[in-house]
Amino acid sequence: MADMKYLKDRIRADGRVIGVNILKVDSFLNHQLDLDVMSVIGRGFAERFAGQGVTKILTIEASGIACALMAALELKVPVLFAKKSRANTQPEDLYTAQVKSYTKEETVTIVASQRYMTPQDRILIIDDFLATGEAVTGLLSLVEQSQATLVGVGIVVEKGFQAGGQRLRASGVTLHSLVVIEEMGPDGIRFTGDH
Amino acid sequence: MADMKYLKDRIRADGRVIGVNILKVDSFLNHQLDLDVMSVIGRGFAERFAGQGVTKILTIEASGIACALMAALELKVPVLFAKKSRANTQPEDLYTAQVKSYTKEETVTIVASQRYMTPQDRILIIDDFLATGEAVTGLLSLVEQSQATLVGVGIVVEKGFQAGGQRLRASGVTLHSLVVIEEMGPDGIRFTGDH
Repeated sequence: MADMKYLKDRIRADGRVIGVNILKVDSFLNHQLDLDVMSVIGRGFAERFAGQGVTKILTIEASGIACALMAALELKVPVLFAKKSRANTQPEDLYTAQVKSYTKEETVTIVASQRYMTPQDRILIIDDFLATGEAVTGLLSLVEQSQATLVGVGIVVEKGFQAGGQRLRASGVTLHSLVVIEEMGPDGIRFTGDH
Repeated sequence: MADMKYLKDRIRADGRVIGVNILKVDSFLNHQLDLDVMSVIGRGFAERFAGQGVTKILTIEASGIACALMAALELKVPVLFAKKSRANTQPEDLYTAQVKSYTKEETVTIVASQRYMTPQDRILIIDDFLATGEAVTGLLSLVEQSQATLVGVGIVVEKGFQAGGQRLRASGVTLHSLVVIEEMGPDGIRFTGDH
């Protein structure tokens, strides 16, 4: 089994909590990629979503790409990464969705080519963080536009104290987060299940 | 040996040449990631740069990440991906460089944390495309600022008819491109060495 205790330990040891909402994991996930962490992430998603007929993993640039690729190497399926666009024109062969970024205080259009996601696909969405759920909601919209089947959503770190996870689960989405942070602050990080 | 004929065949079969300068390889590298192609890329770089004491691979978001990660899995070193920033402020703990994008007609600042690249590092730079060489030149500047040792530069697809490769080699950089396109257009793609 992929070792989620290792992932939690690395987040506790190397993550930097800024205020009450921001967790920087630049040393192993969001700027530098640590191969031990990436391996645990890939195997963690594969154990949860193997055998469900996933045909493609959908993620969003940039920091989702590495997580999605590690899972893809285990599940042996291609990755499709949605791109962030600032263009005002909308070519006809794209699925598009609007995604608001709270950290960057801007709204971007995310796009995916209609060539690479079709009604025959069974899609696993993967992203690194889940907070308010805006990015995942945008990716879900792309899947819906394609009429592909959604197998589920895999997240590396869910901030359980923000509303995204609860809202997605309430809407019926199969959501699996490798680790869920219940609370964090200057005194440390508490994960759901660590009692 | 990693099979560069396979990579060329995929570029010929699935790449779309637009005008004389643009090659879209969205179906396996720049939007969708094909695992067979990615595997050839990772092994190709590893065969060229193994045994040279590389401690870290430096790339740039977004489409360089997957190529760098595949090489990193072979060479068993971490990846550092420089980020594109539009911020005007420059925090003191960052290496920064200006990179002009010809396709997007804009200049972006690329940044890397000083924490993750030091004089003790031996850096391999990896990117997907080399045309005018602006991105690689920016990455070289980050390495120089860090006083790390540059082992070399690995490129998946070099456009040999643009000036970047020649300029980098003339400056003494060890540059290895998995494939080099000599000419491309409506009639097809000719690679260097295919005569």
